[in-house]
Amino acid sequence: MADAKANGKNEAAKLAKIPAAANPLANEPSAIASNISYHVQYSPHFSPTKFEPEQAFFATAESVRDRLIQQWNETYHHFNKVDPKQTYYLSMEFLQGRTLTNAIGSLDIQNAYADALNNLGHVLEEIAEQEKDAALGNGGLGRLASCFLDSMATLNLPAWGYGLRYRYGLFKQKITKQGQEEVAEDWLEKFSPWEVVRHDVVFPVRFFGSVMVNPNGTRKWVGGEVVQAVAYDIPIPGYKTKNTISLRLWDAKASAEDFNLFQFNDGQYESAAQLHSRAQQICAVLYPGDSTEEGKLLRLKQQFFLCSASLQDMILRFKERKSGRQWSEFPSKVAVQLNDTHPTLAIPELMRLLMDEEGLGWDEAWDITTRTVAYTNHTVLPEALEKWSQAVMWKLLPRHMEIIEEIDKRFIAMVRSTRSDLESKIPSMCILDNNPKKPVVRMANLCVVSAHTVNGVAQLHSDILKADLFADYVSLWPNKLQNKTNGITPRRWLRFCNPELSKIITKWLKTDQWVTNLDLLVGLRQVYMK
Amino acid sequence: MADAKANGKNEAAKLAKIPAAANPLANEPSAIASNISYHVQYSPHFSPTKFEPEQAFFATAESVRDRLIQQWNETYHHFNKVDPKQTYYLSMEFLQGRTLTNAIGSLDIQNAYADALNNLGHVLEEIAEQEKDAALGNGGLGRLASCFLDSMATLNLPAWGYGLRYRYGLFKQKITKQGQEEVAEDWLEKFSPWEVVRHDVVFPVRFFGSVMVNPNGTRKWVGGEVVQAVAYDIPIPGYKTKNTISLRLWDAKASAEDFNLFQFNDGQYESAAQLHSRAQQICAVLYPGDSTEEGKLLRLKQQFFLCSASLQDMILRFKERKSGRQWSEFPSKVAVQLNDTHPTLAIPELMRLLMDEEGLGWDEAWDITTRTVAYTNHTVLPEALEKWSQAVMWKLLPRHMEIIEEIDKRFIAMVRSTRSDLESKIPSMCILDNNPKKPVVRMANLCVVSAHTVNGVAQLHSDILKADLFADYVSLWPNKLQNKTNGITPRRWLRFCNPELSKIITKWLKTDQWVTNLDLLVGLRQVYMK
Repeated sequence: MADAKANGKNEAAKLAKIPAAANPLANEPSAIASNISYHVQYSPHFSPTKFEPEQAFFATAESVRDRLIQQWNETYHHFNKVDPKQTYYLSMEFLQGRTLTNAIGSLDIQNAYADALNNLGHVLEEIAEQEKDAALGNGGLGRLASCFLDSMATLNLPAWGYGLRYRYGLFKQKITKQGQEEVAEDWLEKFSPWEVVRHDVVFPVRFFGSVMVNPNGTRKWVGGEVVQAVAYDIPIPGYKTKNTISLRLWDAKASAEDFNLFQFNDGQYESAAQLHSRAQQICAVLYPGDSTEEGKLLRLKQQFFLCSASLQDMILRFKERKSGRQWSEFPSKVAVQLNDTHPTLAIPELMRLLMDEEGLGWDEAWDITTRTVAYTNHTVLPEALEKWSQAVMWKLLPRHMEIIEEIDKRFIAMVRSTRSDLESKIPSMCILDNNPKKPVVRMANLCVVSAHTVNGVAQLHSDILKADLFADYVSLWPNKLQNKTNGITPRRWLRFCNPELSKIITKWLKTDQWVTNLDLLVGLRQVYMK
Repeated sequence: MADAKANGKNEAAKLAKIPAAANPLANEPSAIASNISYHVQYSPHFSPTKFEPEQAFFATAESVRDRLIQQWNETYHHFNKVDPKQTYYLSMEFLQGRTLTNAIGSLDIQNAYADALNNLGHVLEEIAEQEKDAALGNGGLGRLASCFLDSMATLNLPAWGYGLRYRYGLFKQKITKQGQEEVAEDWLEKFSPWEVVRHDVVFPVRFFGSVMVNPNGTRKWVGGEVVQAVAYDIPIPGYKTKNTISLRLWDAKASAEDFNLFQFNDGQYESAAQLHSRAQQICAVLYPGDSTEEGKLLRLKQQFFLCSASLQDMILRFKERKSGRQWSEFPSKVAVQLNDTHPTLAIPELMRLLMDEEGLGWDEAWDITTRTVAYTNHTVLPEALEKWSQAVMWKLLPRHMEIIEEIDKRFIAMVRSTRSDLESKIPSMCILDNNPKKPVVRMANLCVVSAHTVNGVAQLHSDILKADLFADYVSLWPNKLQNKTNGITPRRWLRFCNPELSKIITKWLKTDQWVTNLDLLVGLRQVYMK
């Protein structure tokens, strides 16, 4: 402890000798040290005297963020101008892991940062250890999503990830005599240096309410309660490329006016802040318990919140990039990939936005939606497929239930009129299971019916889907089912986490191209054979 | 609108030509423009393309903040080293007003900032208009507090302000047919560029609970509920001096572990977040309605929260500045000024901290407390003096009620033993009013009994205090009552808000010294007489 204090003083002394000025484009260790020194002093989150590893981590991360922002903004402007077809990856979770080492690895400035920190009396590896994991995912589905983002950035693709900004997305495990106790841990307690709030990107998301029929027969979802979705962006750098894409996370909040001053001054504190509390519940926990009615509603709220905010954002971007364009262009500019069925509500929500907000007819909206949305399946077990109580859906999303009913009706009619041989399959192929005991919406069926493409995540998995779970759909649409085998990013999981092994591989292969083209590892076989 | 958009584009084009690098020490308009450009790009709160007045305000404020931080940190280090007697001004409100114009005026860099913004296609006055008022006060008491801070900074005094970080400290007025409607407005909705959080400055503050008697007779306050006070600092620059002092605002929060994951996953959302909601209530509103029992408890919580966190902070600073020092030194290093009776609880809380936490005896703790605390009275009307129900106090602050009873008992005994002529006055002079119908604690009496000095805020006011309200105390302590006439800062209210008139005054007086010495204005009479 005495040593640590003495070290802290030495480090502070070293810091004082480094000029504090920020030049994000600098590559020299001395200039990088100046950038770090700038952030220690001028982006403070602690008392002025402190320069221990925690403070050094935040300042280092902020200086790296400056570099990322430089590429990120360029990427943003570039794609805004080029207006390419953009991939939007919707996922309830992203298991990001730590960012610092990954970022300086992707930017290829590890050595300069190691030297700069050394000048400041710190060691890069120790500083990197200070970072808290982003609590945005906890399983394979989330890690897959994060690996996809890394790959898409590295492949220079115009892609965005969309997710939710959970506050307690991971829990702290306490082992007591009674077993495991799950304790809340707040990864945002101090601050995440990697996220940037976009106060100009705020969309209203409605829950509950009812459907109003206009005199001209069009319909509008009204009433209920409205929360605001605020965008928080995390930069996702590609490996040794300028392409830096966004993971956009939505946070839910009520507006200031929803805080009832009159009730508060009357001592009714919980009622006064009720809408604020309810908004805070939405992004509190990843996969909240759903054994209760409240739990089910909350999960459905989360799913819809992600879908609605993301789609409103995509539509605004589509409009802003070129004014006065045709809606028929939408599917050539927007590709929505659903990671499992959690974001299935993107389908009826896109239909609703196109019809009720933009004034399109059913056929045009359906054509656009089906050409825009694709679905990734993650399980072959029928009992693991997501099903939602129709009653809960009608309560929370009445307009969407109307749309789902209509999709189902039209699907059944199409099958009957074109494939009478499938008549007996209709009860299992259609979307609504109207079993009076427990009427549900089968989300996977809604996805398969509506998506232009459906994929499994391993060849064997996709083969089983085709032969078994989705066989009837294959008979109807032979080309809809595909396979995309899950991969992992070789940057995070090999190049950066095991630099020594990476060096040996590069030496043996006489190239480091394997970092972006993992198939080259097959060359190691040749080396071994010699 | 079309023009505004075109202007926005021109401004963005101008921005793109200015190098984005931050050097907080720069004085040249071109370098200041670089600082602003740096913050637009690298301290983002909006989408990358935006450079409209709102974005320009935040970036300009952040570049000014850099300069303030530079002086602020130097001031911090200087006083840490010199270890002077430090004034701590405790006030339930600070009516700060806008900061940008005041800050660049104090730093004497208005012209350079006006030119820099001009280079970037903006006009300083328009940018300054973007700032939201800090909602930390709403009346004269608060403005007095802010004027004091400005003066103390300008006079190079080692002073700190302590207050609460209200979220809805001001309301938006809506005039409806039914009259005024008060609507919540969140000045922190986007971000305040002037506040800096100090994650290392966090103190626990307890409410409710009970008093535990240790075997050795000492006492300890235990149980109840504990919230965390987190420090947010606002820099207060002096006029044309390096001295930049702190307004430290406390925000209340529950810790992550207080969020009950088990309850949340069981669908009991309000219970799960109950401690978080209660913590959020503390700094929600300035002067919340107190007609209900809940309202009274909340106000008392606010007052105690301010006092406890501030005193814990002062004690830690006292200890850290020199290790192993004597407690008797405390009053020569710490002066606590109570702005009205709202922070009266500082008196029993300082007694509690010294006795129960630091192990001092009553006499030593009392000697230190009375030599440390001074009180500013703001009213001569007995009915306007703050009184707290003893029952509410026993509920929320049981240990403090014990201490107040003891202070009162000893005060009465002292009067009886030294001034038998005042026997008949004891019922009105003592602290506890034990009227069985409504037993209360008289906070002003507690202040006068405990403070070494009491002042009114105008000569006439102080004279009335001496002759009437506090006459019996004057008979007991002839020198305790003083006058300090309220002033206003001539920087904000003349020099910066009316630069044209200021120029004329300076011309006539042939000096601008009047900005820091307002008595010089008497010279204008000479000019007029000529």
